[in-house]
Formats: sequence, C-alpha cells, structure tokens
Amino acid sequence: MTSDTGFDLANPVPIAQALIRRPSITPADAGALDVLQGMLEAMGFDCRRYPFGEVDNLYARLGTASPCFLFAGHTDVVPPGDEAGWQRAPFAAEEADGVLWGRGAADMKGAIAAMVAAVRRHLDASGTPDGSIAFLITGDEEGPAINGTKAVLKALEAEGETFDHCLVGEPTNPNALGDTIKSGRRGSLNCEITVTGRQGHVAYPERAENPIPPLLDLLARLRARTLDSGVPHFQPSNLEITTVDVGNPTTNVIPATARARFNIRFNIAHTGAGLTRWIEDEAAGVNLHFDGQVKTDIHVTGEAFLTPAGAFTSLLQDCVEAETGRRPALTTGGGTSDARFIQAYAPVAEFGLVGATMHQVNERVPVSDIESLTRIYARILDRYFRDTPE
Amino acid sequence: MTSDTGFDLANPVPIAQALIRRPSITPADAGALDVLQGMLEAMGFDCRRYPFGEVDNLYARLGTASPCFLFAGHTDVVPPGDEAGWQRAPFAAEEADGVLWGRGAADMKGAIAAMVAAVRRHLDASGTPDGSIAFLITGDEEGPAINGTKAVLKALEAEGETFDHCLVGEPTNPNALGDTIKSGRRGSLNCEITVTGRQGHVAYPERAENPIPPLLDLLARLRARTLDSGVPHFQPSNLEITTVDVGNPTTNVIPATARARFNIRFNIAHTGAGLTRWIEDEAAGVNLHFDGQVKTDIHVTGEAFLTPAGAFTSLLQDCVEAETGRRPALTTGGGTSDARFIQAYAPVAEFGLVGATMHQVNERVPVSDIESLTRIYARILDRYFRDTPE
Repeated sequence: MTSDTGFDLANPVPIAQALIRRPSITPADAGALDVLQGMLEAMGFDCRRYPFGEVDNLYARLGTASPCFLFAGHTDVVPPGDEAGWQRAPFAAEEADGVLWGRGAADMKGAIAAMVAAVRRHLDASGTPDGSIAFLITGDEEGPAINGTKAVLKALEAEGETFDHCLVGEPTNPNALGDTIKSGRRGSLNCEITVTGRQGHVAYPERAENPIPPLLDLLARLRARTLDSGVPHFQPSNLEITTVDVGNPTTNVIPATARARFNIRFNIAHTGAGLTRWIEDEAAGVNLHFDGQVKTDIHVTGEAFLTPAGAFTSLLQDCVEAETGRRPALTTGGGTSDARFIQAYAPVAEFGLVGATMHQVNERVPVSDIESLTRIYARILDRYFRDTPE
Repeated sequence: MTSDTGFDLANPVPIAQALIRRPSITPADAGALDVLQGMLEAMGFDCRRYPFGEVDNLYARLGTASPCFLFAGHTDVVPPGDEAGWQRAPFAAEEADGVLWGRGAADMKGAIAAMVAAVRRHLDASGTPDGSIAFLITGDEEGPAINGTKAVLKALEAEGETFDHCLVGEPTNPNALGDTIKSGRRGSLNCEITVTGRQGHVAYPERAENPIPPLLDLLARLRARTLDSGVPHFQPSNLEITTVDVGNPTTNVIPATARARFNIRFNIAHTGAGLTRWIEDEAAGVNLHFDGQVKTDIHVTGEAFLTPAGAFTSLLQDCVEAETGRRPALTTGGGTSDARFIQAYAPVAEFGLVGATMHQVNERVPVSDIESLTRIYARILDRYFRDTPE
C-alpha cells in the first residue's frame, strides 16, 4: 500500500533511505524534516515546525486525547569524517547483502523510519488510538542541543502540550538488537578553570607568579575526591580532565595564564548545582600571591535522571523480548541524549538500533534489524493503548 | 689620540656607539665583530674568527706569555621588541643628557667598549704586559649558545690555548655600578615530559587511557621534592613548570597525548646528571595501563659552579670599590651566562654595567657608568699584571 507520498509507509527501509539521502549534518536539515513531515501528514498527523536559530525542529501529533505516547529523536547527523574511508558513499543509502549503509543509518534515521512504519502498522491493525501519538524530532541533537529538543519542549509546555510517556530512538544496543534499554542517564558538567598569575623569568621566580602550580593543586584536589562508588542502576560518577593548556613556547619564561577543562559524568547521587558549589569552593581555596586569580566557568549540560523500573519499562522490555527472544537490561551508562531534557516532562526511556558503527566511517545496520525494530515499536504502540501504564 | 681605526681607543663611548649601530640580533653579526677586530688589531692583538653554523665568533690575544687574562662577552643582542615603545631608535646609539640609548647599551656592547678602552689605557700606562690579554667575543650568547663560547673554547683547547683568569662583562649590577660581582651561577636543566595514552569518549573512560592524570601525578611528585634549602653563596634550587599542553578542543573527548615542560635552576648541591637520574626514576615510577608511555627529554644547559672567594675575587672587589666607593657583593643569583662554559677552563667572574633596562625597550646606560667601568677594568689589568693572583 503506497500513500500519496510515494512510499509504502509500513515498509521502513525505503523511508530510512529517503532520510539518509538528505545530508542533514547539524545544523543543516537538507530537507530531511520535509520528508518526514510529508509521511506523518499522510497518516493524519498535525505537524508544526519549531525553528530556533539555525536549527529546524518538527512536532507532530495524531489525536488530542490522553494518553499521549511521544516518539522522540533527531534527523541531524554527525559529519561523515574521512570520506575516503567509506566503502559506500555516506549519503547514498545503499542496501547490499542485507545491510543498509550510510551516515545516520544507526544514529538514528533507521529508528525514525521504524517509528513511522510502526505507526502505519498500528493504525492499520488497531485503528485510531484511544489517545494520541506524537513525534518530537529535532535537527540539533548532535550539535549544541540548545535550539533543539530543549527549546521545543519549552515552547510546547507554553502551549499546554503534555505527554504521558516517551520513547527515544537512540541506538541503545551495544552489540545486538535487544541488549539494552536506557532507562536513565548520567548528568554531565563541563568546567573550564583559568588561573592568571604574573609572567616572569624562570631564574627569578620570586618576581613572578606561576599560574601552573595553583592550577595543578586545584586539579589534584578535584581529582582526590571519590564522588561516589556507584548507586543502584548507575556506575560511579567520574571526573575526567580533558585538557590543560598554557601554550608557552619559551623554556625560560614563567607564563601568565594556565587553563584546564574537565567533564564530570554524574549519577543521581549528585546534582549539577551541588557539584558546581563544590568546584567553586575548591577554587576559592586556592592560595595565590600577587594579583593572581582563579576563574571557573561551569556549564551543567544535563542532570542525572532515572525512570524507575515499573509498568512502563516492563512494557518496553516485554515487547523487545517478544520480538528478539531476549529480555533487554535496563541501563544508564554511556553518553547523554535528549532524554535528559524530556525526563522533566514525562517518564522516558530509550531503545533503538545497534550503535556499534555510529559516528564512525561505514555506519551501517542490518536491514533485518530495522524490520525487527519496526515490529517492536508497533508492538509497543499496540500494547500501550490497550493497557496504558499507570 | 686616535688610531688608524678613526677612534680614540681610550674613549669607550664612541666605541659603544659604533657597536650599537650594528644591529647584531642573534645570530646576525651585522659587522659588529669587524668593528671590534679592527680596534683590537690596532692595539697589536692577534685576531682569529671561529665561525660555527650561522654564528661568527672572535678570539683575540695580545702576547703569548702567562698569565693570560681573558675578557669574555658577546656582541649579539636580543631583538628590540616593540619599536614604537622606544623613545629613541634602538640602533641609533643616541647620547642625550648623559645617557647612551640603544639595544645592547647595557647587555653588553657598553662593557665591550669599556674592555677595549681599558686595554688601551693599561697599555698606555704600563706598556706591554708581562703576560697576555685575550678577548673571547661571541655572536651567540642570547641565542642557543651552542655555536658560541662553548664551541670556541673547545676549538681553543684543541689548539693548546690556556687562560689563567676570566672576567665576563655581563650586566651584573641590579641598581648601581658596584652592587655585585657574579662569582658563580646556578646550573639549568630543561625537561619535556610527553605522556601518551589512548583517546576515547569521556562517557567511557574505561575504554580510554587519559594521559593527563599520570602527567599531573608525575609533576606533583617532582614538585613535592625540596631540592635543597640553599647552600653557602647560593639560593635554593628551584623547579619551575613552564608549560602544560594538551590542545584538546573537544569537551567530550579524552585526549591521546599530554605534554609539560619544566626548568630547574640548581646550585652546587646538585649536578645535571644527578637531577636527570632523579627525573628519569620518577618518570619510570608512573603507572600506566594499556599501551601508555611516559617519555622524558632532558637537556642540561649548564652546570652550577662557584669560583671560590680568594685572591682573584678580592682583586676584582678591590678595584670596583676603589672606583665606586662600595665593595660589591659576590653573588650567584639570576640567569645563566657564558661563564657556565668558561668555568671549566679557568676561574671566572662577571662584572659589567647596570642591567635594569636590559632586554627591555629603551635599554640605556649612563655615560658616566661606561667611563667608570672602563676605569675599573683598567685598574683590574694594572693590578693583575703587577700582582697576579695564585
């Protein structure tokens, strides 16, 4: 059955190919959201765009009643990297020997195609749901994530939109479809420390203020703290120094300025505000002579959250297990995703394709995985509207 | 009295002006050594050039007998820096209100002019000495100092040249002529540490090897040691970290490599070889996982030395006191000079002009100081050949 979009909307692979062929490298959209909107409108969705800055975003809803089940994700992709390293052109979306190749195949145009096809199959099998299905698809997940999901959610909140549960289609499976559902994420905090001292000659250190020792002392104090030893469902919080930079080319000069940056991935034993206070206290404890100064620039890019195991996560696990034969673990590891923003509005979990090749050259997924994921998503919709979790 | 050089060789200021007007920024000579050689030859010196690499050097000797008194110094200068900041053009050598302006006026063309004029006055007053007077003037003191004094001394040693005592004309006085004679110098060691780890994502530190923590640990161990609390005639040895560089622009990436450099200024409680062993031992004690590696690149650019207080240093102090009315202190502070090379061949000390403006814009010295220094140097020659120290 083909809609007037020219696609059989129940078949996810051609949809995925159409999306991959739009080279929507953040913040470019390259027509990807138009492709998606056309398909959703063909199924009766009410679609609205939420452009912010140079980013475009799509919100679509079918129905107005509760409960509202939200699919969330992104059409933007990371750059292809070394194009010479690709065995098949990154935006050609070639299918060969049962594998679909291309940037975004796994992260996450394949999953968006599965969402569309799952809705089509659900509507075909069960008719219009006793509730609503919505899509929040951003073009700014791989970028700064300021003008994407976060901004759209704020706008939707102002308009009175509410959601009951959300499933994000990020590639959550390390090795095989069915490995893991992400039911929480660690928070993330970035800090840049700048210590300003006074330049001078190494032979006369008493006339200079070397900013490096106080910077190293402060980093040592920050590293010395064991943030925690892990809490249920989370690995231990971790502070990672990512750079230290002085840039002094001269062996006999004491520099005036030294900088360092670090990132903290923290579990629900911490909050961004609490960590910020701790860092600022430690920085204030650094002793400087002369007119030296310690400056901290701290950004909390996401709070830690956990969607507790319960009826919603069980529903998801049941549906994955029914298709894959394996019950997925609920995990919270790895990097951040837009789920960090959604968790403030509705219980959220993430399940998508296998992420092994994401962000790499030769990103690809088995066609059979896209088909399986479509069946999982359709099964979730069927059961969600038949037996909505509390 | 003017020689066929066109100069009255007993008058130091026009000689200093002639030298300053040659913009001999290391390694350029710009004719400075020719000017000097012409004057020394006019007094009967046997002059030889020792070019090494792009650097030219001059060795001159008057007489062949012992004892041989060596004047040492350099005609090269550091760049003028911000020319707009100069009140008088840096290579114009203008004299105004009793002050001689120009790059090298203090460091150390003024002192070389004083040496030349002092020899002329000594010869005029006392006749040909019962011994020898020599000049070792390099064009590579402000640069790497590899093709300068060090190389010339090696060549002279191979030719059988020996010296009994040496006076270097570096600007040793912090504030006023007569403040200080340098009778020793600290040694200097430069080390670059490179730690190689394994790149990765900050969300998965267990898959990466961050080179920054082991680098910071090693720096902390090196900083934790009190090298000494000072020894007689020397300030405490000091380790100064001059740069730490990773250059990682990305907040979510663990970098592969981290570098640091430090300098140690050390007194005679240490040797370059001993400090090198210590650094290498500490580096070998750093624990790395995976295939990480800690590399140290150590260069000892000068050993510490002390010319013990005795007949030679007393002679110098007496002559400075006789002209300035103040007995100069014997010190070992501040940066390195070519005396670090000469000390292996003969007892060496340093006395020159006031260094307050050296290496800065508007370098300048009072004309009266150049005249006083000339009288001090002439007095030293007179007394040295009358009453040679043991």
